[in-house]
Amino acid sequence: MSLGEKAMSESMVPEGWREVATPPSLFRRFQFDSYRDTRAFLERLAGLSKETGLYPDLGFGTTHVNVTVYGADGRAPGANEIDFASRAAALAVP
Amino acid sequence: MSLGEKAMSESMVPEGWREVATPPSLFRRFQFDSYRDTRAFLERLAGLSKETGLYPDLGFGTTHVNVTVYGADGRAPGANEIDFASRAAALAVP
Repeated sequence: MSLGEKAMSESMVPEGWREVATPPSLFRRFQFDSYRDTRAFLERLAGLSKETGLYPDLGFGTTHVNVTVYGADGRAPGANEIDFASRAAALAVP
Repeated sequence: MSLGEKAMSESMVPEGWREVATPPSLFRRFQFDSYRDTRAFLERLAGLSKETGLYPDLGFGTTHVNVTVYGADGRAPGANEIDFASRAAALAVP
């Protein structure tokens, strides 16, 4: 089993993210001070998606963004998704 | 009671939208053929929000956008929100 196929263990969940069982995914809510910051984060996420080929479900209002990263083909999030989550969190810093 | 404050009646719900009771809002899911079309719609919605000052909650994946337009101050959607919904739907045409 390659790292990419490996199921996620508790210890692998990036800090601040919540592991969701059904459907298998990683979830995190990001809060921002302004709509401008919210939009900037969404733009950065779009760039990360383009680079990685991973497209999470995104929900947003003026000052928050909810990110749900699904595992591939209904499986638990693997190394790629965990890496995406970590990098996404880094992009949320203004 | 001005038009802006008037509560929404069934007949006022724009075609294709669903009136949600709690919290009072208008909801519609838009489906697209591509991520490119999805992003283009989101950009147009951002422009409409800037123009109108109405910022709906938006949820999206690669080929869909869920739009929830809340009434002001927890009230039922009024003329402004109904107008926003109608104009948003027009922006979804590729």
